[in-house]
Amino acid sequence: MNMSVPVATTSQQSDQPLILLSKSNPVFCCYLFWSSLLIIKMLLMSLLTARQRIKTKTFANPEDLRMGRTPEVRFNDANVERMRRAHRNDLENVLPFLLMSLAYVASNPHPLTAKMLIRIGASARLLHTIVYACIPLPQPTRALSFFITFGIVIFEAFYVLICAIKYI
Amino acid sequence: MNMSVPVATTSQQSDQPLILLSKSNPVFCCYLFWSSLLIIKMLLMSLLTARQRIKTKTFANPEDLRMGRTPEVRFNDANVERMRRAHRNDLENVLPFLLMSLAYVASNPHPLTAKMLIRIGASARLLHTIVYACIPLPQPTRALSFFITFGIVIFEAFYVLICAIKYI
Amino acid sequence: MNMSVPVATTSQQSDQPLILLSKSNPVFCCYLFWSSLLIIKMLLMSLLTARQRIKTKTFANPEDLRMGRTPEVRFNDANVERMRRAHRNDLENVLPFLLMSLAYVASNPHPLTAKMLIRIGASARLLHTIVYACIPLPQPTRALSFFITFGIVIFEAFYVLICAIKYI
Repeated sequence: MNMSVPVATTSQQSDQPLILLSKSNPVFCCYLFWSSLLIIKMLLMSLLTARQRIKTKTFANPEDLRMGRTPEVRFNDANVERMRRAHRNDLENVLPFLLMSLAYVASNPHPLTAKMLIRIGASARLLHTIVYACIPLPQPTRALSFFITFGIVIFEAFYVLICAIKYI
Repeated sequence: MNMSVPVATTSQQSDQPLILLSKSNPVFCCYLFWSSLLIIKMLLMSLLTARQRIKTKTFANPEDLRMGRTPEVRFNDANVERMRRAHRNDLENVLPFLLMSLAYVASNPHPLTAKMLIRIGASARLLHTIVYACIPLPQPTRALSFFITFGIVIFEAFYVLICAIKYI
Repeated sequence: MNMSVPVATTSQQSDQPLILLSKSNPVFCCYLFWSSLLIIKMLLMSLLTARQRIKTKTFANPEDLRMGRTPEVRFNDANVERMRRAHRNDLENVLPFLLMSLAYVASNPHPLTAKMLIRIGASARLLHTIVYACIPLPQPTRALSFFITFGIVIFEAFYVLICAIKYI
């Protein structure tokens, strides 16, 4: 009669590794929250670039000229290029951060450590965008915010490497 | 004797959240299908760029010159640059769409809504490539196909943000 | 009394698809290992670019000039641009490889095939970086290493497409 309880418990325990990439894992929920925030931020970069393009009438495609009532395509506007560099920096760092953190969460790290790393890494990228694309601040503000996330991704990568080394 | 049935059912129900990122979830299968299609499309951009490079003899690396029998490296060919912009636009939008949709599927959305968003978002990106890189059409065709996927990613991001807000 | 054993086994079998994206799946562990390695490699590209920027005093942002004690921003240095092209090539190929392989692992492929594809695809990208950014070798070394990973991603994509075709 009371067999169902221990059976369920055993099943629950043997399934523990399964729930890492699911809503029942608070670390994964934390990852979901911050990755959504970073992706919204990345998409907003497109709008910021478009705003600079319209403001400085710098269009790269002939079919866009009519929108800005400009006579010809133009490149190398300093403001547009700054946005594009900031956006590219996001591609180079935010996407690896998101993929690496997902692999890290799947490697069953210590929950508190993992949540702190995700929060700090994502916040540093938000700061990076502000000091790169919105209010250009003197260095080393940008370098610092860059290397915080950089260091966190490297740490996560080595953690996962060591966890999975025997499956090389 | 008939205890095994209710036990199995209970186990099935308590495991429900687990199956979101698995082949047993039709929404995830739909995501798998469309993400594969988008990734094939993204990779084909490399081949389209290479074709333009060979056609216009625009090689960026000294070691590639022998292949095209050209005397020197060349940049800024209009056709090559259009392909590169289209490809970069994919990096900026398709990769966030794939990552965001994965997080969205993991957040247990309404199945029909989720499947429609994935289908429309992916189809709009296929259209975007056609009107940007293959047959340049007058605006706002490209802008419209861009903003359909853009809007879907923003919607998915806010859905996940609200789902996971207490794990901030 | 001995009912718990068959119940557990049944539950285990019906849950089989769940464990694909978890540490209990050796193919996923293999994916974790190689994706971490590729992400470390991608991040190192940033440092290699920074080293070239400092060596050739080519800074793109006014606020970086003080660090290099240079009078003005400079673009189009050949060494910096080579690094940036290698880095961009990574964005265009490594990130799709990582996302596609994740979808492929979730599609329950043959374990041995999947592990070999992940190992060969990731190793080819490591080789690609060496012959592009470190020791520029004559073609077709770079083209070969490029097309190995390219072909693997296309294969994985078609495998997943066929698996998930009815969820279109």
